[in-house]
Amino acid sequence: MKVSKKHFSTLWLENDTVKIIDQTKLPFEFVVKDLKKLSDFCIAIKDMKVRGAPLIGITAAFGLAVSIRKNPSIDSIKKSYHKLVNTRPTAINLKWALDIIMDDIKKIPEKKRIDRSFEIAKNLRDDDIINCMKIGINGYKIIRDIYKRKKKIINILTHCNAGWLATIDWGTALAPIFFANRNGIPVHVWVDETRPRNQGALLTAWELKNENVPYTIIVDNAGGHLMQNKKVDLCLVGSDRTTFNGDVCNKIGTYLKAISAFDNKIPFYVALPFSTIDLKTKSFSKIPIEERDGKELTHTKFKKKGKVSLGEIYPKRSNTFNPAFDVTPSKFVTRLITENGVIKPNKFEILKHITR
Amino acid sequence: MKVSKKHFSTLWLENDTVKIIDQTKLPFEFVVKDLKKLSDFCIAIKDMKVRGAPLIGITAAFGLAVSIRKNPSIDSIKKSYHKLVNTRPTAINLKWALDIIMDDIKKIPEKKRIDRSFEIAKNLRDDDIINCMKIGINGYKIIRDIYKRKKKIINILTHCNAGWLATIDWGTALAPIFFANRNGIPVHVWVDETRPRNQGALLTAWELKNENVPYTIIVDNAGGHLMQNKKVDLCLVGSDRTTFNGDVCNKIGTYLKAISAFDNKIPFYVALPFSTIDLKTKSFSKIPIEERDGKELTHTKFKKKGKVSLGEIYPKRSNTFNPAFDVTPSKFVTRLITENGVIKPNKFEILKHITR
Repeated sequence: MKVSKKHFSTLWLENDTVKIIDQTKLPFEFVVKDLKKLSDFCIAIKDMKVRGAPLIGITAAFGLAVSIRKNPSIDSIKKSYHKLVNTRPTAINLKWALDIIMDDIKKIPEKKRIDRSFEIAKNLRDDDIINCMKIGINGYKIIRDIYKRKKKIINILTHCNAGWLATIDWGTALAPIFFANRNGIPVHVWVDETRPRNQGALLTAWELKNENVPYTIIVDNAGGHLMQNKKVDLCLVGSDRTTFNGDVCNKIGTYLKAISAFDNKIPFYVALPFSTIDLKTKSFSKIPIEERDGKELTHTKFKKKGKVSLGEIYPKRSNTFNPAFDVTPSKFVTRLITENGVIKPNKFEILKHITR
Repeated sequence: MKVSKKHFSTLWLENDTVKIIDQTKLPFEFVVKDLKKLSDFCIAIKDMKVRGAPLIGITAAFGLAVSIRKNPSIDSIKKSYHKLVNTRPTAINLKWALDIIMDDIKKIPEKKRIDRSFEIAKNLRDDDIINCMKIGINGYKIIRDIYKRKKKIINILTHCNAGWLATIDWGTALAPIFFANRNGIPVHVWVDETRPRNQGALLTAWELKNENVPYTIIVDNAGGHLMQNKKVDLCLVGSDRTTFNGDVCNKIGTYLKAISAFDNKIPFYVALPFSTIDLKTKSFSKIPIEERDGKELTHTKFKKKGKVSLGEIYPKRSNTFNPAFDVTPSKFVTRLITENGVIKPNKFEILKHITR
């Protein structure tokens, strides 16, 4: 998507070097970073320089390819696989992307593994763009239908960032919004701040601003009040992992918005590529929920006199607990917007539409 | 309650001067401030140096008394009344306390008005302490009963600050917790950070620390996840205004916790003195919801190298919307904990127990 009118994606190859946008610097600084060795990829994922389930998967795939370029032996590849797969526990795309490469290259001779792993990683990257465009079109139709009935500006609430920064391009939850905006449907987005890391206020707002989509940032506490007062026409979020049964694991706080939408009879849509669907985990209570450092609560980045640095917003010795995700049971999800269509969040529909 | 082992209340008279704790400085600094003239009182309420429905009421009462000391004419008193009543729109105690003085002094000669207004303000202050103690005892019994069944540490989730800082002493939602803790019942409090002003992380955590109550700060997004995972035994919050029908207007985000408690079959209690009950407003949609400056979202106080100042956490030109309160419909409220008993949130019970 556009950054200061120039088109960018979140990860690309330039003279055999993988380049990413360091998302921890946004929106105050726009920094492109080279990922050269395996540890660069692991740190980029762990420290959330790249984040969002689809992008994490592609980044890990390129990380594995880069490590294979250094050493294509199966022992070395397995070690790299384990380092990458353990960077973050919740998003299933990490394992999904790595498994695709592993399953393929273990059958072929060492000397062919380098080219083949890069080829797969590039294909995954291309597929991600296409899938997000399809999600965008499928979700766009929903917004268009609501607009046909309402004939007034459509207010959409989103949580965290499931925009192009969370994928390679277009995004998942934001793709339908970008399509609607480009096609002349008047939309306005309520952007949940998304504590503790403020991905909504920092990343989603930045994306929307760059694409000239009207938006308003609200604290995570405010969404329920807006829904009670009919200021939200639909909710639209992404997913880090969706179970077989349609339960959606996404950024902490998603569940609260989903039950509020349910209480106020507002449709709650989840946009996701099939790569985030976990066919193995049957009960959502079995999904590992990442617990991150409490410093994400007590400290925050701020800008003062043109300089960005980290400051303490409440006493750092405060006791904190920082789970990064929660699970929204399928009964609160109106529909899943996927690359293969808009489907009900249940086993039957998921199996019917799966193509991977 | 205790501050560094010394007993404090939030507002007191010393040589005819009203003194308050400047709550905007907590927990980084403990600053006592003199309120000398009417404008000091208006600014203290508007800028939230004092906050919390009960404390706002008492502060306004003393503000009116101080202005009467300067000019006891009815014209002057009316002007002061209007200045004070318009400082903040949502908390009903402001009007309640001012009306008690107004109704009384307009019947008596000018020269008696000064002493009488201070007498009423002092009585309101004393009553607030007693009412909070009664709320504490009534709520304590609920916690004790749960403990008798569970026989393990009781986890209580609270939102914003309804502790002694929101009243004169003891608090509303925190009073039962202080009583339980002092009576040897093992409690642990999940403290919602409470964006945008972080009253949970800044004030509630500070109160609990001073009283040696175990606590953990979480982002506002996390409460639902904790409730889904059976980490919360009850929710306990305060109220800025409660309607005739038992609908509870409280800090923005309260509604989201209430519906989450409902979805997870966790009791949701609201602790409040009867002075916060609004007998006139029948529909909660008629309650004026204060909208505060968006700078409360984009900027935050932080400490760096020992110095506290204001920094920009996301671009200040971001569009923002900042409603300060929301309304929790009575169907999501298990019981109201009042000075006159623990009652169901309905008209019949409220009228039966009212004593004012």
